[in-house]
Amino acid sequence: MKAIEGDVKDSALAKEGQGLIDWAAREMPVLLLIRDRFRQEKPLAGLRVSACLHVTSETANLMLTLKAGGADIVLCASNPLSTNDAVAAALTVEHHIPTFAIKGEDNDTYYSHIASALEHRPNFTMDDGADLVTMLHRERTDLLGEVTGGTEETTTGVVRLRAMAAQGVLKYPIVAVNEALTKHMFDNRYGTGQSTLDGIIRATNVLLAGKVFVVAGYGWCGRGLASRARGMGSQVVVTEVDPLRALEAVMDGFQVMPMADAARVGDIFVTVTGDVNVLDRAHFESMKDGAILANSGHFNSEINLAAMDDLASSVRQVRGFVQEYRMGDGRRLHVVGEGRLVNLAAAEGHPAAVMDMSFANQAVSAEWMAINQSKLEPRVYDVPAELDAEVARLKLEAMHVAIDTLTDEQEKYIHSWEEGT
Amino acid sequence: MKAIEGDVKDSALAKEGQGLIDWAAREMPVLLLIRDRFRQEKPLAGLRVSACLHVTSETANLMLTLKAGGADIVLCASNPLSTNDAVAAALTVEHHIPTFAIKGEDNDTYYSHIASALEHRPNFTMDDGADLVTMLHRERTDLLGEVTGGTEETTTGVVRLRAMAAQGVLKYPIVAVNEALTKHMFDNRYGTGQSTLDGIIRATNVLLAGKVFVVAGYGWCGRGLASRARGMGSQVVVTEVDPLRALEAVMDGFQVMPMADAARVGDIFVTVTGDVNVLDRAHFESMKDGAILANSGHFNSEINLAAMDDLASSVRQVRGFVQEYRMGDGRRLHVVGEGRLVNLAAAEGHPAAVMDMSFANQAVSAEWMAINQSKLEPRVYDVPAELDAEVARLKLEAMHVAIDTLTDEQEKYIHSWEEGT
Amino acid sequence: MKAIEGDVKDSALAKEGQGLIDWAAREMPVLLLIRDRFRQEKPLAGLRVSACLHVTSETANLMLTLKAGGADIVLCASNPLSTNDAVAAALTVEHHIPTFAIKGEDNDTYYSHIASALEHRPNFTMDDGADLVTMLHRERTDLLGEVTGGTEETTTGVVRLRAMAAQGVLKYPIVAVNEALTKHMFDNRYGTGQSTLDGIIRATNVLLAGKVFVVAGYGWCGRGLASRARGMGSQVVVTEVDPLRALEAVMDGFQVMPMADAARVGDIFVTVTGDVNVLDRAHFESMKDGAILANSGHFNSEINLAAMDDLASSVRQVRGFVQEYRMGDGRRLHVVGEGRLVNLAAAEGHPAAVMDMSFANQAVSAEWMAINQSKLEPRVYDVPAELDAEVARLKLEAMHVAIDTLTDEQEKYIHSWEEGT
Amino acid sequence: MKAIEGDVKDSALAKEGQGLIDWAAREMPVLLLIRDRFRQEKPLAGLRVSACLHVTSETANLMLTLKAGGADIVLCASNPLSTNDAVAAALTVEHHIPTFAIKGEDNDTYYSHIASALEHRPNFTMDDGADLVTMLHRERTDLLGEVTGGTEETTTGVVRLRAMAAQGVLKYPIVAVNEALTKHMFDNRYGTGQSTLDGIIRATNVLLAGKVFVVAGYGWCGRGLASRARGMGSQVVVTEVDPLRALEAVMDGFQVMPMADAARVGDIFVTVTGDVNVLDRAHFESMKDGAILANSGHFNSEINLAAMDDLASSVRQVRGFVQEYRMGDGRRLHVVGEGRLVNLAAAEGHPAAVMDMSFANQAVSAEWMAINQSKLEPRVYDVPAELDAEVARLKLEAMHVAIDTLTDEQEKYIHSWEEGT
Repeated sequence: MKAIEGDVKDSALAKEGQGLIDWAAREMPVLLLIRDRFRQEKPLAGLRVSACLHVTSETANLMLTLKAGGADIVLCASNPLSTNDAVAAALTVEHHIPTFAIKGEDNDTYYSHIASALEHRPNFTMDDGADLVTMLHRERTDLLGEVTGGTEETTTGVVRLRAMAAQGVLKYPIVAVNEALTKHMFDNRYGTGQSTLDGIIRATNVLLAGKVFVVAGYGWCGRGLASRARGMGSQVVVTEVDPLRALEAVMDGFQVMPMADAARVGDIFVTVTGDVNVLDRAHFESMKDGAILANSGHFNSEINLAAMDDLASSVRQVRGFVQEYRMGDGRRLHVVGEGRLVNLAAAEGHPAAVMDMSFANQAVSAEWMAINQSKLEPRVYDVPAELDAEVARLKLEAMHVAIDTLTDEQEKYIHSWEEGT
Repeated sequence: MKAIEGDVKDSALAKEGQGLIDWAAREMPVLLLIRDRFRQEKPLAGLRVSACLHVTSETANLMLTLKAGGADIVLCASNPLSTNDAVAAALTVEHHIPTFAIKGEDNDTYYSHIASALEHRPNFTMDDGADLVTMLHRERTDLLGEVTGGTEETTTGVVRLRAMAAQGVLKYPIVAVNEALTKHMFDNRYGTGQSTLDGIIRATNVLLAGKVFVVAGYGWCGRGLASRARGMGSQVVVTEVDPLRALEAVMDGFQVMPMADAARVGDIFVTVTGDVNVLDRAHFESMKDGAILANSGHFNSEINLAAMDDLASSVRQVRGFVQEYRMGDGRRLHVVGEGRLVNLAAAEGHPAAVMDMSFANQAVSAEWMAINQSKLEPRVYDVPAELDAEVARLKLEAMHVAIDTLTDEQEKYIHSWEEGT
Repeated sequence: MKAIEGDVKDSALAKEGQGLIDWAAREMPVLLLIRDRFRQEKPLAGLRVSACLHVTSETANLMLTLKAGGADIVLCASNPLSTNDAVAAALTVEHHIPTFAIKGEDNDTYYSHIASALEHRPNFTMDDGADLVTMLHRERTDLLGEVTGGTEETTTGVVRLRAMAAQGVLKYPIVAVNEALTKHMFDNRYGTGQSTLDGIIRATNVLLAGKVFVVAGYGWCGRGLASRARGMGSQVVVTEVDPLRALEAVMDGFQVMPMADAARVGDIFVTVTGDVNVLDRAHFESMKDGAILANSGHFNSEINLAAMDDLASSVRQVRGFVQEYRMGDGRRLHVVGEGRLVNLAAAEGHPAAVMDMSFANQAVSAEWMAINQSKLEPRVYDVPAELDAEVARLKLEAMHVAIDTLTDEQEKYIHSWEEGT
Repeated sequence: MKAIEGDVKDSALAKEGQGLIDWAAREMPVLLLIRDRFRQEKPLAGLRVSACLHVTSETANLMLTLKAGGADIVLCASNPLSTNDAVAAALTVEHHIPTFAIKGEDNDTYYSHIASALEHRPNFTMDDGADLVTMLHRERTDLLGEVTGGTEETTTGVVRLRAMAAQGVLKYPIVAVNEALTKHMFDNRYGTGQSTLDGIIRATNVLLAGKVFVVAGYGWCGRGLASRARGMGSQVVVTEVDPLRALEAVMDGFQVMPMADAARVGDIFVTVTGDVNVLDRAHFESMKDGAILANSGHFNSEINLAAMDDLASSVRQVRGFVQEYRMGDGRRLHVVGEGRLVNLAAAEGHPAAVMDMSFANQAVSAEWMAINQSKLEPRVYDVPAELDAEVARLKLEAMHVAIDTLTDEQEKYIHSWEEGT
């Protein structure tokens, strides 16, 4: 078999890419601890992995970890736009991990890159949206016999995989990394909280102190965001449709009101609901001159930009990521990042420290599947609780935080209690 | 059948009791909203209820709500010490709800009171610890045929009931009120947070600002307590045995360390772990002179008082609920409320607003069982999610907080997403 | 000269009093550090002190500190109601500090006790409201020749003394302890913040989380209170008349509005303005049923109780320190502690830790005057900045908090800068 | 006299500059309210103003406000690097305000530009560092006779002016805008708090939650920064040399320790002391691998970079504004923005909302001097308290925040009290 070479934009970028990989590593201590152990124990020895992920400096650190564990990897892009060409070059040139990814590649190239990754004849797949798994099940069923497991990073991918499993189509077990608490907690609460504010500040340079900051949705993202906005001195208003979440927001000391009322008082609006048209025509009509609107939910459906366009007498770009919509009555509404995820549109997405937890779950899940492959069925698995706890434990270790362990006496006491009397 | 009369300490206390019931009502708006509806709809018409609960002003409001719904009630104490004699008098005299409860009653009287409550031949039971249910299943099986359902307030009771169900002994369905989110959230996070600080301040009158406040355990109670202690200006240290919880505490900005280290730096220590000897001999030996120790977990097992006694050269009462243990080396450690639940020992337990949520769940659960009795099996049920949401909705209404509802478009969007593509 | 004996209620209470003095000492480490130094250095050797102060366990610790410094003291009450008889007994019997104070003493006794304290022929006075200084200047001018200095604790007293100084009547120098930052910061911000909430919770047992908590006035007390109420989960609204303070409240993330608007949305109202009728008839008319009103300003003038009485169809006591005013339209408004300082009316006033700072300033000011008496003029002095800093330094030492000191290089740098280039 | 034309880089940038001016205006509502009034009242009619300021979009808004008030203005740069060429073009071309400023101009050009601004024969000067005032007093004494007043923006400038006044050299009155509370509060507490975090996040993209964040100095900047860092989920450690400030930090719930100890535990270090070598060789030697160091004090003297260079085995740029110093033992320390003011080095400096307050004080101070010029002496004046309050009042108005006013009764009460009894 001829050596796979990869397909990157410019090999000369490898050194720059290595710098970026090193910087990300600095904030990914959990992955580094796992890498150290993998290097000793080689739990993935000989495993052929085809990975289809965003080709970023954080992903590169995951690749290096899998390789340290003995895996034989090729990588392709899971999105035509998210590739960092320098990182792709570094992986291919410096680390001999063939990478198929060019930022801005067209659709044909994108799919040919996935096809190239499959040429690796994987025993294991890593996916971010299930494109590679789908091609494998549709076009390369010849390879399925050698595949023993895989992981999936996103909710979207998991939805597709569950549907496949329900129809009996899925041919091997896959771990849904998304469900781990150590991923959720970092991604949604702490990651989104900080990076949403970061995106808004970079885009607008507004002072948050004293502003009325409206958070639509009090799920984990909304809770994190509301807490951080208060922490920056804003007066936070929460809107919700779920009475339990609304009540929790009230008890946490926030003002809760319908969006129709919030629209009149808000200075800054951020949607994190996962639903559609949360900010809608009627709200635009009553907002204050100068209001700032952003979305931090996954899709750019939460702000009804069509209605905004319809209401506006003119639209212009006033700063890098800010569109000014001038209403017929002269009021100006400012939309950040065209209503797309503001932390990606106007900042750098989640910090590496967040991806550290996500990718640590990827690494230990791959190991767990390698060990347990004979016992697993072709369905979607959650990350086992003990792996989640292990990732937390490693994170604490990396932060030099020690904790207690139960004494025998305590272990016995709590155990007897849980068993009833 | 002869009218049941009740057994209270002094009927003359009725008027005083009514004042206490009114004051509690002020903070129980959800129960009052349910009472208003019950008065119209009479969902419990004709239902004979035997309730075995702490006879407090809050419980009285639950009784009045059930009665407004058409129920025919008798009440007895679920604990010999928790009865408020004035409230018992008011229920019996003013509201003709026969009550069997005298504060400080002996064991024989306690059980004879439960037996008297069973003489009511209930169709429905309300329990707080399962003593009434136990007597019913052991001594009055003749009555079981008429019982169609019941509720249980506590974790302890639920453990007993689940054991009975597992052995096939339980003869009718029971709702475990304890598991509702609207109960948990209020009890553990907000109730315990405030009332623990209240107990410590009433007992010691110390200034919390600037103190190192050690919280052992970062479950819901610990999270609430840590947040409130920080809110009062303390520097909060958290100890944990679970890495996921420990990590969450770190990410919430708290210092996390083993108790062996925390013992050396803490000014105030509060245990909320549910385990035993969380503060133990080795910790006492390294604590600073003047340290204050309290427990806010359910049992008084979290502080090892036997070890403390053993170490102490003398013990004396220095304020109402504070014992000073003088160590051999001259250091003084102060234990609040003998290590029992500090909010009950040194303050007034949970505010009525907390019991409002718990008892609202009791009331709507009773109604739900009355409606659905034909469909239910003899096992332990959780509070249905829609009842939990309804209680939250009523609480928001009582607080004059309006929220959004999904538009048809949003309903459809979110629904399509949840179903997958 | 015959030994002065004191006049206390019951000498048998001495032991109980000693326990209270010890408990307070636990929270007064700064005063204890000063006491240790005074015991070595005797800076007040031979100084005859007549002190007119609230006879509490904290004051007792001040007296013991002065005595350790060599002073020869007598003490009388500065208020007929604030005396703790057990403490008075302990001071007289156990510590041979003659004390003239009986709780509830009539006016004649009160003044005769001051007169008795003056019989001590003081060289130094300590006053809390200037009653002793006034009697000295009016009735015992024969003694003035021996008096070299004094201190005054309160704002009220300082106002009187400044008036005397302006008229050329004041005959010796007096330090206004009230102005020290270490007193202010503790009293107003941290002391009032905590103890006001403590008073309200003890009186009403309401849950603060989720309540709309209105703070009238954003001076130091208001800032402390708003911060603590937010820390307990309340949604805080601030009212102000000063635009600078109002703006600061907005920038700190609070909602600011006129009281006319706040009256309609508040659940709990606390006045800390120092002004009159801050809560007035028009506000009562628009408040929600069940609103709770309290005052934490010095005088009971901030809530217009006369107007409340006028509006009410009935008034009754519903809990220990809570009056329910039933309005003509059926709404119930609840006033805590009759509108007097709620932390004194319904709780225990400031924690000992707060008085520690105040009395530490008393002690070091007395020493400073003893040393500098020859240089001082008969006027009101502020506490010198270096004493203020010294009290802060001792407090840090007592809390085991170490800080940095400037290096020579830094000292030189900052000095050159302040001098200009 | 020939029309002054200005000297800008490229007139074609005028339109882009106007966009930037408009965006800044959005966050400068106070200045806009003053501009509206000035347009009506023309308080500066005919006043010739020579301004020497940073030529930014915010400054442009101040210029437009002065012009609306009737002033005849020329502007030159107060720093060769801070000019925005597009803004300079817009002012000159669109608004006919001659501007002498080219980004990156050499020293000769810089001074010739100031000289050009003086050719305007000003009646009034606006300075930021006192360079224009200095040239006026040294080289153009011929013009001094027509100058009636001026303002100075910075502390540095004020120090120079006070020195001139002390030596009797200053020839006309100047208002020190720096001292206004509405400037301080926004600049130091809220501005520095947010923009310092902004600079660090932009430069490093680190997650702040869970990090140990060390703040050196607890002045107004330090207080703001500590509060914001806590608000983002960091565990904040404060270092201080002043016991009063250190004590305040402790009472605000922060950990306080010497830098020697903080160096060992910190993840991120920010200096805001105004002193030199606050982070020094001994600290670098004990810091953790990966520590991040930034300065937010005025001068780049707070981190001893010479010692860092000396210790490092290699230095390299690892992200846009981040230098990695590799220590001999392999630890990596990361310095943001070469130790210069991190909010300017790595972000956009203070938000326009902050400059709004500063420049509003400039505008009303200019008006006040124009009105009162006959009464003023040649010295440095503070911004009168009533102007400060007026700026606060306008800010509240712009934020749609209404506040209370004292009733006659309250006015009288508070007045009587202040006067004593």
